[in-house]
Amino acid sequence: KRRIDWSPLAAEKQGFKHFMLKEIFEQPRAVRDTLIGRLRSEDASPSLEFAELDARVDVRALAERHKITIVACGTSWHAALAGKYLIEQLARIPVEVDLASEFRYREPIVREGDLVLAISQSGETADTKAALQEAQRLGATGLAICNVVDSSIARLADVVLYTHAGPEISVASTKAFTTQLTMLSMLAIHLGKQSGAMADARAQALLEGLREMPVAIDAVLGVQAAIKIIARRWVGARDWLYLGRGLSFPVALEGALKLKEISYVHAEGYASGEMKHGPIALIDDSVPVVVLALEGPGYHKTLANLEEVRSRGGKIIAVATAGDDAIGDVADDVILVPKVDAFLQPILASVPLQLLAYHVADLKGTDVDQPRNLAKSVTVE
Amino acid sequence: KRRIDWSPLAAEKQGFKHFMLKEIFEQPRAVRDTLIGRLRSEDASPSLEFAELDARVDVRALAERHKITIVACGTSWHAALAGKYLIEQLARIPVEVDLASEFRYREPIVREGDLVLAISQSGETADTKAALQEAQRLGATGLAICNVVDSSIARLADVVLYTHAGPEISVASTKAFTTQLTMLSMLAIHLGKQSGAMADARAQALLEGLREMPVAIDAVLGVQAAIKIIARRWVGARDWLYLGRGLSFPVALEGALKLKEISYVHAEGYASGEMKHGPIALIDDSVPVVVLALEGPGYHKTLANLEEVRSRGGKIIAVATAGDDAIGDVADDVILVPKVDAFLQPILASVPLQLLAYHVADLKGTDVDQPRNLAKSVTVE
Repeated sequence: KRRIDWSPLAAEKQGFKHFMLKEIFEQPRAVRDTLIGRLRSEDASPSLEFAELDARVDVRALAERHKITIVACGTSWHAALAGKYLIEQLARIPVEVDLASEFRYREPIVREGDLVLAISQSGETADTKAALQEAQRLGATGLAICNVVDSSIARLADVVLYTHAGPEISVASTKAFTTQLTMLSMLAIHLGKQSGAMADARAQALLEGLREMPVAIDAVLGVQAAIKIIARRWVGARDWLYLGRGLSFPVALEGALKLKEISYVHAEGYASGEMKHGPIALIDDSVPVVVLALEGPGYHKTLANLEEVRSRGGKIIAVATAGDDAIGDVADDVILVPKVDAFLQPILASVPLQLLAYHVADLKGTDVDQPRNLAKSVTVE
Repeated sequence: KRRIDWSPLAAEKQGFKHFMLKEIFEQPRAVRDTLIGRLRSEDASPSLEFAELDARVDVRALAERHKITIVACGTSWHAALAGKYLIEQLARIPVEVDLASEFRYREPIVREGDLVLAISQSGETADTKAALQEAQRLGATGLAICNVVDSSIARLADVVLYTHAGPEISVASTKAFTTQLTMLSMLAIHLGKQSGAMADARAQALLEGLREMPVAIDAVLGVQAAIKIIARRWVGARDWLYLGRGLSFPVALEGALKLKEISYVHAEGYASGEMKHGPIALIDDSVPVVVLALEGPGYHKTLANLEEVRSRGGKIIAVATAGDDAIGDVADDVILVPKVDAFLQPILASVPLQLLAYHVADLKGTDVDQPRNLAKSVTVE
């Protein structure tokens, strides 16, 4: 009798070794689905649709007299940090980001007419839910970015913006994060148009960039083999640093968290400019330093940071923009991603770091989809 | 001929093995000197004197329509994070904290009439200086907390609040940090009185607490022997986590930075509530977890976090309040500090973590005062 090694669960992995890998590869579809509900691109020029938000929020008043407070935990908090940069720069509305577990207990300053934005994949994160409720109690309008429809946070919020990542089984979040970033990018562009801070042409260019994002992600997924080789080279490292500036800073934090979560090695993310204020003491030739060195405003500062790492014997794995030849002179390994607008880089640059973390963990043989000590959604405080 | 093993430098260490240790032990004096210039305590009821600030800043307008942005790097950034909690809670003025290296490049939202506060021990930190200038250019009044008199940042600021730590020779900052926290505590109390957010009796109680702080620090320095034993027990650990909530969160970040800077082990600070969102995956019985578990609003939540660490086999070094008997049941090691007002705990709780970092590094035999790769003041970007 032939033994059939088959389970419904394995079937759902659609040939991928782990759910995490499957979910990483679903991102072109997930990002596209998240865009579809909001981005009208039937016409020559794409436009955004946030009718339920427009009905509830006076964006000009928000920009002039109020602020947005984003509350989140873990991976969603990293999305929130990117959200602050996006919304402040594109819409000129002040944004405060707080860990939900901190927000609740520090008597936060929230005023009638402020906006609170809760970000949670599951919509059940206990601290985030309580933070949203607290801000609403103080007079803020509650906005939520959730993936799970009709979840607790979605039900509490005055306006819900759903990502359409689909069910995420892996404990380490991947497609939920990039779809949160996608939603935050659209939200920032929309707020920028409503607040009057953003020229139409600029908004159009960013929306075109978002429309092309699934194709760009596909291109990054295509270099998996190269990332696997880098993972093999560094699988023995015990300490990793991840560095990024500006919008790449939260990407660095998230990249480090992925590796920490599933491979149990000590990876830590830092703002590149902070390296000289402490973490550089850690660096020697046993510490791989993953540096987000994408083209854009912070590029030359980042190159200077790379030189500092090199001069201390540190090994550099750079995530850089295709066509950047200079990076070859300073990095030990390089992962090249397609050129996109600097404001959209976080979505794209997150993908190779997911693959890097995945392959390090897989080579180590950890339980990738169910890492020790962690639960998928943290419903206790 | 008798060889005289003596150098002017050694003499200046006044019998201490390293400048860092000398400077840790100078903290009662440094904090007292920082208080003296501002805290009038000749009378029965102490009061604060910030005349130059009062002349330049309309605190009620600040609370009603503006915000304070604090810019800093490294250790000073940790002081800034505590400053946000103190000022928001005691004075109800919105505070944003930013890494100086990030602030400059993200087109920050600063408005005419806002206040910017730059914190830098040396007063020469390049990124902090540039961030202060940028905020002033955008219309903010510039306030600075510096230790070095007549430094670049002090000269640029509209109002300077000097700490009186005295020269800090050790690269790893200790007395500069606790005097920054002392100044920020006084500033928060003063702003709270000026904004009307703070009752006189509450302010009096806090000022009494500050006045007693040098004595409390002395008591913590008295338990050095116990901390040395804990350091010996854990000197072989490669990874450390530091956890804190609320005002103890920046203390945890700073404690981890101290250890990282001088002993080159990978120590990382986290907000206690974030542990379940990733870092708990790192925990096993080889990872000491230093937990700030002081009495106060977050105490019971913190105990719950401790149980989670324990149930994963993690080893706990707790910093707790003298008289707390319950902590003995959950911690593997405990460092007890005198009871002080919850708002003043950061100053006191930083001290045992400095001693812990110092003794781990000294046992490892690193160059404590001149750790590899680091410079005392970062005057390049």
